Amino acid sequence: MRNSLAALGLAAIATQPALGYDGLVAKQSFDYPGAFTTVGGAAIKQVKVGYETLGKLDAAGTNAILIPHFFSGNSHFAGRYKAEDKAPGYWDAIVGPGKPLDTDKYFLISVDSLCNINTKDGVTVTTGPASTDPDTGKPYAMRFPEVQIHDFVTIQKALLDKLGVKKLHAVMGASMGSLQSYEWAATYPAMVERLVAVIPAAQVDAYGIERVRHWGDIIKLDPAWKHGDYYGGPEPMDGLVMAFKVLSLDTLSPEWGDAAFGRRWADPAKDPAKSYDNQYAVEAAADASAMARAKMTDADNLICLARANELFTVGGKDSLEEGLKAIKAKTLLLPSHNDHLLFPEATRHVRDLLQAQGTKVEYQELAGPMGHVNGVVGMAQTADTLTKFLAE
Amino acid sequence: MRNSLAALGLAAIATQPALGYDGLVAKQSFDYPGAFTTVGGAAIKQVKVGYETLGKLDAAGTNAILIPHFFSGNSHFAGRYKAEDKAPGYWDAIVGPGKPLDTDKYFLISVDSLCNINTKDGVTVTTGPASTDPDTGKPYAMRFPEVQIHDFVTIQKALLDKLGVKKLHAVMGASMGSLQSYEWAATYPAMVERLVAVIPAAQVDAYGIERVRHWGDIIKLDPAWKHGDYYGGPEPMDGLVMAFKVLSLDTLSPEWGDAAFGRRWADPAKDPAKSYDNQYAVEAAADASAMARAKMTDADNLICLARANELFTVGGKDSLEEGLKAIKAKTLLLPSHNDHLLFPEATRHVRDLLQAQGTKVEYQELAGPMGHVNGVVGMAQTADTLTKFLAE
Repeated sequence: MRNSLAALGLAAIATQPALGYDGLVAKQSFDYPGAFTTVGGAAIKQVKVGYETLGKLDAAGTNAILIPHFFSGNSHFAGRYKAEDKAPGYWDAIVGPGKPLDTDKYFLISVDSLCNINTKDGVTVTTGPASTDPDTGKPYAMRFPEVQIHDFVTIQKALLDKLGVKKLHAVMGASMGSLQSYEWAATYPAMVERLVAVIPAAQVDAYGIERVRHWGDIIKLDPAWKHGDYYGGPEPMDGLVMAFKVLSLDTLSPEWGDAAFGRRWADPAKDPAKSYDNQYAVEAAADASAMARAKMTDADNLICLARANELFTVGGKDSLEEGLKAIKAKTLLLPSHNDHLLFPEATRHVRDLLQAQGTKVEYQELAGPMGHVNGVVGMAQTADTLTKFLAE
Repeated sequence: MRNSLAALGLAAIATQPALGYDGLVAKQSFDYPGAFTTVGGAAIKQVKVGYETLGKLDAAGTNAILIPHFFSGNSHFAGRYKAEDKAPGYWDAIVGPGKPLDTDKYFLISVDSLCNINTKDGVTVTTGPASTDPDTGKPYAMRFPEVQIHDFVTIQKALLDKLGVKKLHAVMGASMGSLQSYEWAATYPAMVERLVAVIPAAQVDAYGIERVRHWGDIIKLDPAWKHGDYYGGPEPMDGLVMAFKVLSLDTLSPEWGDAAFGRRWADPAKDPAKSYDNQYAVEAAADASAMARAKMTDADNLICLARANELFTVGGKDSLEEGLKAIKAKTLLLPSHNDHLLFPEATRHVRDLLQAQGTKVEYQELAGPMGHVNGVVGMAQTADTLTKFLAE
C-alpha cells in the first residue's frame, strides 16, 4: 500500500513520523484445525493463513490487540521483515515502544484474510480461489465458496485460542479491518474490551455494494479471465489494472488530486489536447500505481474478497440497529472527513445508535487530503486519543 | 436519463410536479457554415448538430436562454416530441408558461453536443467518431480529432448568430452543461447577462480527470472495441454496460441507495451469500439501467466526450482564478449537497473567487437523495430562486 502510494506521487503526503517499531517481524502461518465450515455452510478442507505478531502475550492472556487488515492489505501492520525493506508495515507510525500500540505493553497480532489479494508479494499466506483444491489438485478458481467477514473472525478466534489469548484488550482495524472489528465485538462481546473502528463501516450499504462489486466485474471484462480459470495461462492483467485504477480512486479525494497533481501534464512537451496518447500527470501516476498493484494480485481472490465485503452487515442482521445491539466494548470511531467510499455520515449514525443503546463511544474525524486512505497513512494524528483510549 | 432512472427503481424519487411544457417540441438541425476548426487546430469538414427551441425570440433578439446539456443528455430539455412519449425532456418541471424558464417570456434553446453519446436514440443529431468522414466514406472512429468544451460554444454561437440572438438573457446548464455555461460567460462576457451553473464545475480537477477517463478506459477493455474500429461489426456492449455501471454510480450517493434499495435481494428466494449469481436489488437495477443506456450509445463518441470533459478549465486557463476573471454575468450557483462527482466544496471556492473579483454571485445547495443527479431530477426546488434571479 505504501509503495503503491509512492507510485501515485504521494511520497511527501504519505510520509509519517519515522520509526515506530525498530525490530524485525516475521510472517508465521496457521493451519485451521480440521475442515473449515463457512458461515454459509460450505466446507473447505484445508485453511491456512499467515499472521504476524509484535510484543509479548502476558501470563493472563489479556493484553492482546487484534489488528484485522484492510481490503488490499495483509497482516503486515508494522515493522520490517529485513532491515533493507523499503517501507515498514502500514501502521508503523503508531506501533512500537511508547507509541499508542505499545509493543512493551501489548501483544499485537494480525492475520492474513481468506481470499487475500496479495498472493504474489512473496509473504502473504492465504486460502482462496488461487489455492489448490485438495480434491482435484487444481486451483479452486471461482468454485471456491463465497466467504464472509464472519469467517475471517472464526479463523482468527481459533488462532487466538491456540496462542492462549483470553481477552482482547482491543480489536482495531481500518476499512475492511473495521468490518472484522465490528464483527468481533458483536460475536464475542465478553472477550472484546475495546473496539477501534477506523475509516469504518458496520454495514455495507446499497451504494457500497454496488461500488465494491464493480472492482470484480471490471476484471471479468478481460477475456483472459476465462470465468476464473486462467491459472497456468496468461492472467487478466488488463482487467486487474483497470480494477485498481477504479478501486484506488474510490479510496481517494479531490484534495489528494489538488495536492499531488493539479492539472499538470505527465510530460510538459505533450499536451493532452493534442493526442489521446498524451496524459495528465494524475493519469500516468494512476496507471503506474495500478500496474504495480496488479502484479501482486490474484484476480479471482479479488473477486472473492469483494463479495465478502458486499455481504457484510454486523452480526449478520438485516437491521443495523439489531446488529449493533450485541456490542458491549467501549468504542472509538475514527472516520475520515473526506472519505467518499465509507462516508463519515454513516459512522455518525453508528455512533448515535451505540450511544442510544448505552455503549460508551468516542468519535474523532481524521483530517488530511487522502480521503479514505487517511485511515492508513494519517494515523499519527490520532496518537494522543488512541493512547488515552487504550489506557483507560 | 429519466427512463434510465426509472430502470434504477427511482420512479418515485425522480418524479417531479407534472406538466411544465404542454406543447410538442421538434428536433431541428444545424449545419455549421463551412469547415470547422477546433480550438486545438484540427479541421472537421462538415459539422451538423441537432437543436430544440421553445418560446419565441423577441424582435431585439435579447430574450434567449441557452441550455447546454449534461454528459449523457442531449438538447431535449423539456416537452415531448409526441403526445404519447413516456417522459418529457429532463428539466420539464421548470419549463413552461408561469414556470421559471417561462416559454411566454423567453426563447429557450439547447443544442446537441459534438460527440454526443446518444447516437441510437433516433433523435440526437451529432458529429463525432461515429460520423462518416467525408474523405473516406467511413466512420472517423478514433481518428476524429479531440474536441473541447470551447468548440461546443463556438458551434452554439454560430447557430445563435443565424437565429438572430443578440444577447443571452441567461446561459444555464447542469454538469457538462455548466462547463459550457462557464465557458460562454468567459468567452462572450458582453453577450451573457446571467449565468446559472447547476451541479457545476468551472475546472475539471485531477480527481475529476481520473474519474472521467475511467468511463472510456473501461470500454477499451472490451475486445469488441478494436481500437475504435468496430463499425459494421459487433459493438463493445459489455464494455459500454460496465462503463455505465461505473458512470451511473459516480453520479449518485449513499442516500439514493438507502432510499431505493437498502440491502434487499433482487429475488427474495436467492440469497447473495449462496451464489455469485444471486444479486442484491441495487445490482440488478444497475445492470438493467446500464444495459438500457448502453443500447442508445456509441462507444467511441463516449470516449471522445469524456476526453472533452477532462480537458476543461474555464477560458482555457491553467489557473482557475485567471479563467474566471473574464466572467461579468450575474451568477447563480446550484451545486448538490451530496454530489460526489463535482463536489459542492469546489463550487464554494468558485463562489469565493467570483465574489472577490466583484462578480455578483448567489449560491444555493440542492437537497435530495440523488447526489449529482439532484441537478437533473430535483430542480423544482429551485423554482422561486430561479424565477427571481432571471427576473432581476
